[in-house]
Amino acid sequence: MARYKVILAYDGTEFQGFQRQATVRTIQGSVEDALKSLGWRDKSIIGAGRTDAGVHASGQVISFDFDWNHSTQDLRNALNSNLPVDIAAKSVELVEADFHARYSAVARRYRYRLYCERVRDPLLERNAWRVWPQVSMDALNQAAAYFVGTHNFSTFGTAHHSGGSTFRKVMASTWMRDGQELVYEILGNAFLYHMVRRLVNFQVEVGQGKKEHQAAHKLLNNTLDNLVQGLAPAHGLSLVEVVYPHN
Amino acid sequence: MARYKVILAYDGTEFQGFQRQATVRTIQGSVEDALKSLGWRDKSIIGAGRTDAGVHASGQVISFDFDWNHSTQDLRNALNSNLPVDIAAKSVELVEADFHARYSAVARRYRYRLYCERVRDPLLERNAWRVWPQVSMDALNQAAAYFVGTHNFSTFGTAHHSGGSTFRKVMASTWMRDGQELVYEILGNAFLYHMVRRLVNFQVEVGQGKKEHQAAHKLLNNTLDNLVQGLAPAHGLSLVEVVYPHN
Repeated sequence: MARYKVILAYDGTEFQGFQRQATVRTIQGSVEDALKSLGWRDKSIIGAGRTDAGVHASGQVISFDFDWNHSTQDLRNALNSNLPVDIAAKSVELVEADFHARYSAVARRYRYRLYCERVRDPLLERNAWRVWPQVSMDALNQAAAYFVGTHNFSTFGTAHHSGGSTFRKVMASTWMRDGQELVYEILGNAFLYHMVRRLVNFQVEVGQGKKEHQAAHKLLNNTLDNLVQGLAPAHGLSLVEVVYPHN
Repeated sequence: MARYKVILAYDGTEFQGFQRQATVRTIQGSVEDALKSLGWRDKSIIGAGRTDAGVHASGQVISFDFDWNHSTQDLRNALNSNLPVDIAAKSVELVEADFHARYSAVARRYRYRLYCERVRDPLLERNAWRVWPQVSMDALNQAAAYFVGTHNFSTFGTAHHSGGSTFRKVMASTWMRDGQELVYEILGNAFLYHMVRRLVNFQVEVGQGKKEHQAAHKLLNNTLDNLVQGLAPAHGLSLVEVVYPHN
């Protein structure tokens, strides 16, 4: 028995999120099915990030124990032959027995893609949020800068376990252009439930002049119980990297 | 009654091509259905390019006559409310009564997207062809240069009507990088059936060192009846622009 770390990419459109559920299509369920068809008999895999329904990934990480007698490259190929077309195993690595996809992770990087057009674009719609009226890039970056540092993000999301801390450390928060898309990248030690999507929605409101960027200051580190209104849609979001101490 | 020109974008994945067919989902059928729900009673719309099943468009052009009593912007909005999510009307314009989406067009611009990876990427797969082994960008561009000019492309495609000319004029043929993708762009007065997909497949073979770029010279302007083997898949291809004399 050895422990494996696998980097997964997926188009989240047709999945009801990461976590296995009895009757619907999930990432965890599909990967476990693929592993079972290769002879894996364990109870469950561990995922670094429990992405919501519709959220994509180019760098999700999972770990599991498996008694596999061939090379890691063979395992990658065998997994890809057994996974549905909207999930791929990008790499397979042997890791130490104490490696844990979720608990060993020191940071996660998410990207949110949006585009500003009056009319929807069927070739972008699947992976980007269409926003109108136009958004100011300067205003987006002014708002984004507030989130860097260790803050109580309780107005932007809820802890995954009740009573859990709502403090999170954000190491990078920035907007950039990619062709006709605006891409937000945020690197943090961990994220509250729906936190990235609430941060994006708030920033878009600032970018459209509906809110002042200074409002971020009041929302952070306050003691309000209420979450800010508005959630950017899932399909613009992607988990792009999970960082571990030795990679 | 006035004549309208509409620029369409679509994700071709779920369509059986442009041309209306009785029992399957097509672009023409879907657009005509949307127009009918707005009171349009004509027999058919005209499309500039009859894209194959799975081929996308960001700049398809259609023309039709319509007795519409509101503005062109209202027509665009009404169309978008009635079109399925994978088609959008990007713009609507009033044109002269002799404008014809197909016959008035002087050039078409197509793009073909591919990426070179060992493992499929679920976030690129829908719009790009995965190619492996690696392709040399220099070799691609060496091959691409042969196609510029007026040539008999009979080994790369067939005329849409039997006995039709197989000479076509190519004004631009070039490869460029876009992130991890390689993008081929070709501008020509018109294209034979399957011509762009055969040109792409041939160039990829050159790029992978399976064929010499000089082979292009022998394939062009020859009198062979046989088509070259191999067709790049439809999902990498997109009709990006149709050019008219006065635009």
